[in-house]
Order: sequence, then C-alpha cells, then structure tokens
Amino acid sequence: MLPEDTLTPTSGQTDFLIRELIECGRDFHHRGWSLGTSSNYSVVIDREPLTLLMTGSGFDKGRLQPDQFVIVDENAQSPDKAFPKPSAEAQLHTVLAQHGAGAVLHTHSVAGTVLSEHFLKDGGLKIAGYEMLKGLAGITTHESEAWIEIHANTQDIAALAKVIGERLRDPAIPLRHGFLMAGHGLYTWGESIAAARRQVEVLEFLFEVVTQKRLLFGSF
Amino acid sequence: MLPEDTLTPTSGQTDFLIRELIECGRDFHHRGWSLGTSSNYSVVIDREPLTLLMTGSGFDKGRLQPDQFVIVDENAQSPDKAFPKPSAEAQLHTVLAQHGAGAVLHTHSVAGTVLSEHFLKDGGLKIAGYEMLKGLAGITTHESEAWIEIHANTQDIAALAKVIGERLRDPAIPLRHGFLMAGHGLYTWGESIAAARRQVEVLEFLFEVVTQKRLLFGSF
Amino acid sequence: MLPEDTLTPTSGQTDFLIRELIECGRDFHHRGWSLGTSSNYSVVIDREPLTLLMTGSGFDKGRLQPDQFVIVDENAQSPDKAFPKPSAEAQLHTVLAQHGAGAVLHTHSVAGTVLSEHFLKDGGLKIAGYEMLKGLAGITTHESEAWIEIHANTQDIAALAKVIGERLRDPAIPLRHGFLMAGHGLYTWGESIAAARRQVEVLEFLFEVVTQKRLLFGSF
Amino acid sequence: MLPEDTLTPTSGQTDFLIRELIECGRDFHHRGWSLGTSSNYSVVIDREPLTLLMTGSGFDKGRLQPDQFVIVDENAQSPDKAFPKPSAEAQLHTVLAQHGAGAVLHTHSVAGTVLSEHFLKDGGLKIAGYEMLKGLAGITTHESEAWIEIHANTQDIAALAKVIGERLRDPAIPLRHGFLMAGHGLYTWGESIAAARRQVEVLEFLFEVVTQKRLLFGSF
Repeated sequence: MLPEDTLTPTSGQTDFLIRELIECGRDFHHRGWSLGTSSNYSVVIDREPLTLLMTGSGFDKGRLQPDQFVIVDENAQSPDKAFPKPSAEAQLHTVLAQHGAGAVLHTHSVAGTVLSEHFLKDGGLKIAGYEMLKGLAGITTHESEAWIEIHANTQDIAALAKVIGERLRDPAIPLRHGFLMAGHGLYTWGESIAAARRQVEVLEFLFEVVTQKRLLFGSF
Repeated sequence: MLPEDTLTPTSGQTDFLIRELIECGRDFHHRGWSLGTSSNYSVVIDREPLTLLMTGSGFDKGRLQPDQFVIVDENAQSPDKAFPKPSAEAQLHTVLAQHGAGAVLHTHSVAGTVLSEHFLKDGGLKIAGYEMLKGLAGITTHESEAWIEIHANTQDIAALAKVIGERLRDPAIPLRHGFLMAGHGLYTWGESIAAARRQVEVLEFLFEVVTQKRLLFGSF
Repeated sequence: MLPEDTLTPTSGQTDFLIRELIECGRDFHHRGWSLGTSSNYSVVIDREPLTLLMTGSGFDKGRLQPDQFVIVDENAQSPDKAFPKPSAEAQLHTVLAQHGAGAVLHTHSVAGTVLSEHFLKDGGLKIAGYEMLKGLAGITTHESEAWIEIHANTQDIAALAKVIGERLRDPAIPLRHGFLMAGHGLYTWGESIAAARRQVEVLEFLFEVVTQKRLLFGSF
Repeated sequence: MLPEDTLTPTSGQTDFLIRELIECGRDFHHRGWSLGTSSNYSVVIDREPLTLLMTGSGFDKGRLQPDQFVIVDENAQSPDKAFPKPSAEAQLHTVLAQHGAGAVLHTHSVAGTVLSEHFLKDGGLKIAGYEMLKGLAGITTHESEAWIEIHANTQDIAALAKVIGERLRDPAIPLRHGFLMAGHGLYTWGESIAAARRQVEVLEFLFEVVTQKRLLFGSF
C-alpha cells in the first residue's frame, strides 16, 4: 500500500497516470468515441484499501486537465471535498476494479450506441472469426468468438454495478471482455491503462466491422 | 460593463476568447464541420450594451487569425470600419445572445445538411432514448427526448432572426438546444464557448447516430 | 514580370508558396484526398511569361519537401533539368492558368472517384439547393445550382487539356467551378492557393452530401 | 554487407529506419488501420545474410518506441534474446524479403477485413479501371486491373509463408501488389518503407472505393 500522501493527484505516480489518461482522452475524443462530456476513465492506484484515480464528472475528455481527476475509495466516494465530483458511473469502475481490473475505460461511440440499442433484445452481440479478436485479453486464436453482453441503460448505477459484479463472479459463464449499455456505450478494462486502451480499440474496431458487413451484405 | 477600451480584439479578455474560438475552429474544421468558409462563431463580451466578438465573413475556420474577428453591437453592426465585415448571419447570433446565450456556434456538417433537408417537411427531428442526450444543457435523464427544430434556409437573415426570437420567447414550447437550417447546418449555444462546444459535439454525434441507425436498420 | 532569379524555389516568394502547398498537401493527405502519390498542385508565380510552381511527379503529398516542386512554363516544360519531372498532368494546370486560374488543385477522394465513374454517362453531376454552394466562387445564393462536368479519364493529357481550354472559352455555357475525371478525381482552381483550397473543401463536402443523401434516401 | 555492429537498433542506419517505421505506425494507427496491437512492419537492413528490422510482438503501433523493434534473420529468428519477441507473422515478412521486398507492411483495416472475408470464396478481389491503380508499383495505365489475392486466415504461418513463396515464384501468374488474409488484413511491400507505404495507401483507398461503390450502387 502506498503511503497516504502519495494518493493525491500531484504525486509522481499519479502524475504519470494522469498524463496517460489525458492522452487517452485526447485520442478517444479525436476518434469521436468521447464527445461532449461523455465517457469516463479510471485506474487503480492502490489495492488495500482499493483506491482509484478517475475522471471527474462533466469535463471535456479531449482536453482533460490534471485538476479534473478525483480519488475515490471502494465505495466510489471521494475522501476529500476539494476534489471534483466523481463520475455518476463511478460504481461501475469500482466493481470492475474489485474483480481485478487495473484500469477501466468507458467510451461512447456511434457504432457502440447503435448496435447496443438494436441488440439489447438479444442480451448481447456475438462477434466471431476475426483475427482482431486475438487482441482481446485471453483470446489466442482467431477461431474464437466473443460475446459482448448488453445491459439496459439505467440511471440506477448502484443496481447495475451489483448485476455486473454478479456476472463477473458467475461460475458458469462469467462476463468477459467488456459490456455495452444500450444506446450508451462500452465499458472495458485491462490490467493497465495501455491494456484497457487496447481492449477499447479492438472492440470499437470490431463494432465497425460488424456495422460495415451489415451495410455491405445485409447480415451480421 | 467593461470599459470601452477593453472591447477590442487586442485586450487580454478578448485575446483569451479569440484563442478559444481559433481552437474551436481548428477542431471543427478538422472534423469536417466547418469546411470552406462555412460556419461562424461568437461569444458575448459585454451585456450592457450587448457586445459580441464574432468571426468575420469569408475566412477559413480551420486557420483563423486574430485579425479575422470583429466586434458587433446588439444590431449586429460593427462600431469600427477597420474591423472585417461581420458574418452575414450575425443577427442570428445577436438574437440568441439577447435571449441569454453566452456563446453561439454554427456548424455545417454532412449529417446536419442531409438530415435537415429531409426533415424540413416535418419541421424538426425528434431524437429520443440516447444517453448522449444527457449532455445537452437542461436534460438530466437518458429517457428524455430532444426536438431539434428545422427552419427553411433563407438569405433573409433578419426575418429568420425575428422568428427565432419569437420561438425562444414562446411561452408554450420554447425553442431549446439548437436548430437546423435546411440544407445548411446547425446553430446551438451555451453559457460559455466550452458549453456551446459540448452542445455541438452532442448534437453532431446524435445526427451521426440517427444516420447510422437508418442505414443499418431502415428506420429513424 | 518577376526578375528571372526570383523564379527559383529558393526565393522568398516561392518559399512562401511552397510552404502553403506543403501545408495543403498535409491537410488533403490527412483527409484521404491525396493518398499514395495521387494529386498535384500548382500556383502561378508569373504571368508574362506564364510560369507555374507545381508539385513534381511521384512524391507523397502528405510529406512534400521543398525540393519536390518544379517550375514550368506555359507549355508545361521545366526550364531546368535539375528540377524534378513535372506531373504528367501539368498541361491541365497550364491550360487552367492560361484562362485565369491563380492556383490549381487536383484531389483524388473516394467520393469523387465513385461519383465520377457513375455519372460519366450523364456528362456531369448537378448539385442544387445547398447553402455550401455559396462557398463556390461566383455563387451568391443557396438557391443556385452547380453543374460539375465529368470527363472520361485518359492518358492523353494534351488532348484533354485542349478540350478543357475550349470548355473554359465556351461562349454559351463555359466550364465553371471545377471538373471531375471519371474514376480519378477533381480539378478545381481559384485566384490564390487559399481560394482554390476553399473550392476543394466545398466540392468534396458536396460530394459527401450527395453520397450520404443517396445512401439514406435512395436518390440523388 | 553491413558490419555486424551496425545491425543493432541503436546504429545510425537503423535509427533512421526505426524513426520511419514509428512514423508509419503513428499514421496508420491514426487512420484506424493498425488498432489494438494489430499490424506489423519490417525493413531489410542487410541482404547477405538476409536481416530484417521488424516490430516486436504485442506493441501499440500508434506509439512505437525504439526498443520495441527486433532484428531477425532469414529464418525469422532473433539472434539476441535481449530483443523483444518477433511478431508471430515474422515468416511472412522474411519470405517476401527473400523474393525482393525491401520493406513489408501489414495493415488491418475495417474495409480490408470485411472485403477479405466476403471474397475469400473467389480467391481474390479484382479492382479495375481506377486511376489510383497507377500508384501500384509496375502499373502504368489506369486501364489496367489488379487482382488482390485472398488467403484463408491461419495460425500456421510457416505453411502460409510457403504458399506465398510459391505464389511469388509462380512462372505463369505470380503474386503481385499484395494479398489479403480473410477477416484479417493486408500484406503489401515495396523497395523501401516509403514505397511500401504508398502501396498500403493505394490499396486501402481502393478497398474504400470498392466498398462505397457497392453501398451506393449495389454492385462491385
């Protein structure tokens, strides 16, 4: 565990992570995956007790500033009122971190919005047979397939976080790779910010592939 | 009210706002929302009397220079002949400012052009059920919907400005969020340049979503 | 007429124009309008005798270097063997310059390629009713329409240059705005590099609008 | 042959080539052709014995660092365990280099992925009549056509490399221009990194053209 005084956004460790997340926001905003004040990003900076550095609520992700981040605990609460307000979806970040994620990235792309709205009725979207699947953590052959769960969009983040926790612990078919919220966007994660960025890039690429295939050939 | 000598494009306050609008133009041009000499942007720099800083007519928005801005009064007239000519659409900016806008951004995207031409017959475009709607000022739940009014394109800007003023003051269902001019583009606003940029990003994102949904599934 | 020694790519005047065209190439390459070694750009640097500065043949337009430009005379010949080889399409630039163009830009976009191939049978493409048309030189109201001529692609540039010259001088309905070569791309021009860039941006935007309208609503 | 001590990523020659490949990765990542950890790039740094500088396995192509490259021999083996692991597809690079390629670039675009999956049944994709074809090495008129072979995707890179070698040596109709792996992406090459980049840009542009033509007019 880091000494408490390193858990501030001005320490060396968090400085580096903040720069990484600022750069991440700049790239995602540029690609149109984090427009308006959509999206939020976090990284674990301590495990005992669980402590996350995350984007504050309502800031432009393409031009994040160091003072627009906040430290939250395992209950998604900020220990210091001087910090900006955490994202309304902070509990989704903490539940993913509690189950092992080192960094969580939420993006909000056109393809993710449209596909998640359409496939909500099926509970998810199957993506199979593409080489790019090998870019997802834990997949080693392009013959694999990924099932991307879709959950209804909700303002009751606490309830959704509970469901996500149960799905992650599901002994039969646990949630993997990431999930979509219908008409909203993608949550995915990795052991580091770089690993989570790869997950975002792979999944957003596959959403584009699925979309383009449907437009060209009429089927998914 | 600011002393009159601060109301020049070389004062500290306007320097900052000019840099903000130059950066805004660079980003919108890059995204293809402000190509050619389309688009115009303004920000209120005084309320009594109403004074706006806005882009001059006919300049490239991707490479705006500080001397390509102009100060206009509440009648959209420039007090100084040394300034560039104000945009032909300056009166749309002033009427929006008179009704509370702190900054007005007009963009000209492919999606906005095509959708506004098609939906003019309906008087507007309803967008409902998307999380991104929460990014619009005054909307707090994704279950809300936004009605984006569409007005016929016209060269009679004075007449359109009058209509927009009436719509903004409409006691029953006042104009909100922004409006489209058919075959032309979007006007939206916010209390600051940053707030207006968010409105642009949210609305242009939603136009893309609506377009992509129609292409994929045949309905809006 | 400029003294002869100013007509070299190292003089102050041409230095500035070279930087403008390098920046132009970077932007067009970025947008996907000048990929591979496609496209070529020129600017008039003298009228008597007619002298153009233009891109040499076969260079990457996204990373043009000052020594990749060439000076050509009214016959599209380079006076100095030390220069790179002029573009194979140099005569299209000189004929446009002889009829008044100050700068000529040729781009090669996906939309321009596909539309020009399809509409060659009609001899051109009518674009009407869009506000963006006002960005074309000589159009002052959005109620106007532009007819963009399409010529068959050819390796016989001399013959095509002759046809273009005749079309520019046509007393009845002279060629205006620009023209497409089928399956190839756009030629347009202006009194300066900046003016020609605006023409490119306006026309490429309108090609995108026409394309998107057809995809969404099945008609042009 | 270069002295052995120049064959390290820190020598002057390789420094330059590494910078070229880093810049290439940044551009391709930006365009969405090298997302996640997809893609790999190589350049020949010696012919006797054949020695390639190539991207290591699993790195982000948009932010390549000098220590993420590796030297491999003609058997796609790295002489030094201190290097990162070569790409799993290193043998495709070496077989192309053995047949004359000076640089090999593998990209992974949406259009390449979707088209290659669809046309695998035909063994390839014919692209004809476009001016942009002239940008491919060895094509001198736009009336030519290019046949882009498609091979089934496989994890058995050694077997595929053998097939590619046979196709390159085929006395009747040898493999030219590049090839697609189904649901995966493009391999192409040139005598230098710049020449190979041009091949990538030309082929990816043509994949976009073919896609857009099909979407607009229902046929390829």
